[in-house]
Amino acid sequence: MAKVPVVTGFRRSPDGGRGLARDLRVRWALEEIGQPYVVELLDFAEMKEARHLARHPFGQIPTYEAEGLTLFESGAILLHLGQAHPVLLPVDPAARARAVQWMFAAVSTVEPPIFEFSLATVLERDTPWFQERQEMLAGRIRAVLGRLSDRLGQGDWLEAGFTAGDLMLVSVLRRLAGHGIIEDFPGLVAYVARGEGRPAFQRALAAQRAEADAAQAG
Amino acid sequence: MAKVPVVTGFRRSPDGGRGLARDLRVRWALEEIGQPYVVELLDFAEMKEARHLARHPFGQIPTYEAEGLTLFESGAILLHLGQAHPVLLPVDPAARARAVQWMFAAVSTVEPPIFEFSLATVLERDTPWFQERQEMLAGRIRAVLGRLSDRLGQGDWLEAGFTAGDLMLVSVLRRLAGHGIIEDFPGLVAYVARGEGRPAFQRALAAQRAEADAAQAG
Repeated sequence: MAKVPVVTGFRRSPDGGRGLARDLRVRWALEEIGQPYVVELLDFAEMKEARHLARHPFGQIPTYEAEGLTLFESGAILLHLGQAHPVLLPVDPAARARAVQWMFAAVSTVEPPIFEFSLATVLERDTPWFQERQEMLAGRIRAVLGRLSDRLGQGDWLEAGFTAGDLMLVSVLRRLAGHGIIEDFPGLVAYVARGEGRPAFQRALAAQRAEADAAQAG
Repeated sequence: MAKVPVVTGFRRSPDGGRGLARDLRVRWALEEIGQPYVVELLDFAEMKEARHLARHPFGQIPTYEAEGLTLFESGAILLHLGQAHPVLLPVDPAARARAVQWMFAAVSTVEPPIFEFSLATVLERDTPWFQERQEMLAGRIRAVLGRLSDRLGQGDWLEAGFTAGDLMLVSVLRRLAGHGIIEDFPGLVAYVARGEGRPAFQRALAAQRAEADAAQAG
């Protein structure tokens, strides 16, 4: 049984250290609650080995192991961590339910078209349909961002204060930087910058970058 | 404040009453816990009106309203309902965290390629790339189903007993019926049938079908 939680991440992240992989969400959450952790870096072959599949049936990262509990899915890990930490999930049941609602919205409504867009740049770049289909996906992403921007309005966060829902949404929206889509929604650009400006995010990103640099050098 | 919870659903579901829309997940959960509810049916124009956008910022269904709390995202609604009902979420914290992990896996790992596959049959059927891209998506779906089938093994459910995680996964997998993909995984076909065989599922589906028939006739 590990005393300090163990989180898994990419040994060589496809994003070259920009912190777009899903382990950053867990690292960020652990930094928000002040919980020390260690990171186990895996290469793609190790992710498909039986030892890792026992932790994560889909052979992905991140996973979380602590005190005999093993979890996969960043949303589930954040929800578990948030049970005892109001900085992630408010104590009031209604406020907590609304924070959880934004966590689900992040991964099941906002992220899928963004993930498809990112994935297509890897898997479909050489197909004859790449350009036309990316424009269709950009349209779907813009529709979602427009609704999200309307709901955020002039607020700093989606509910009364920062929650794990914002942590997930900011993490999902970061994937869009530089693609000329989110840049049409200045309120959302500021929202992402607000999330990235949190000291806990900065610590998580710096740790992840140091590991990426070490892996690059090694 | 509504005494009986109000759930929103499609007035005319694109699936013609097969219960593939996300409101069925909430209806099924409410039937599992024996909570009476009423359904407010919306057409596509009503879903984009300010009154509904106040409930659901992305203009979709389902929503859930009860005792002054308004929620969207089926996962968040199930998690809220499961707090007080062990038939959805076990009381033991570790078992509960694992059930929640399967809820997130359902909507953020298993559903996205399945949803893309369904969506493409609507939005991309007339594109020149439709057939070739559907085969790529089918390959991504098969990879996920293979892992899920391995984890399920000979078990009836993914953990010790039925949870909201199974409810979400069965609901997601039902979208695949008849496409010649899930049929390659007999263990998963049996798993879906096991979920569909639950009396609570049958009651939810029958209610949804009766409404679809009435809307068709009306």
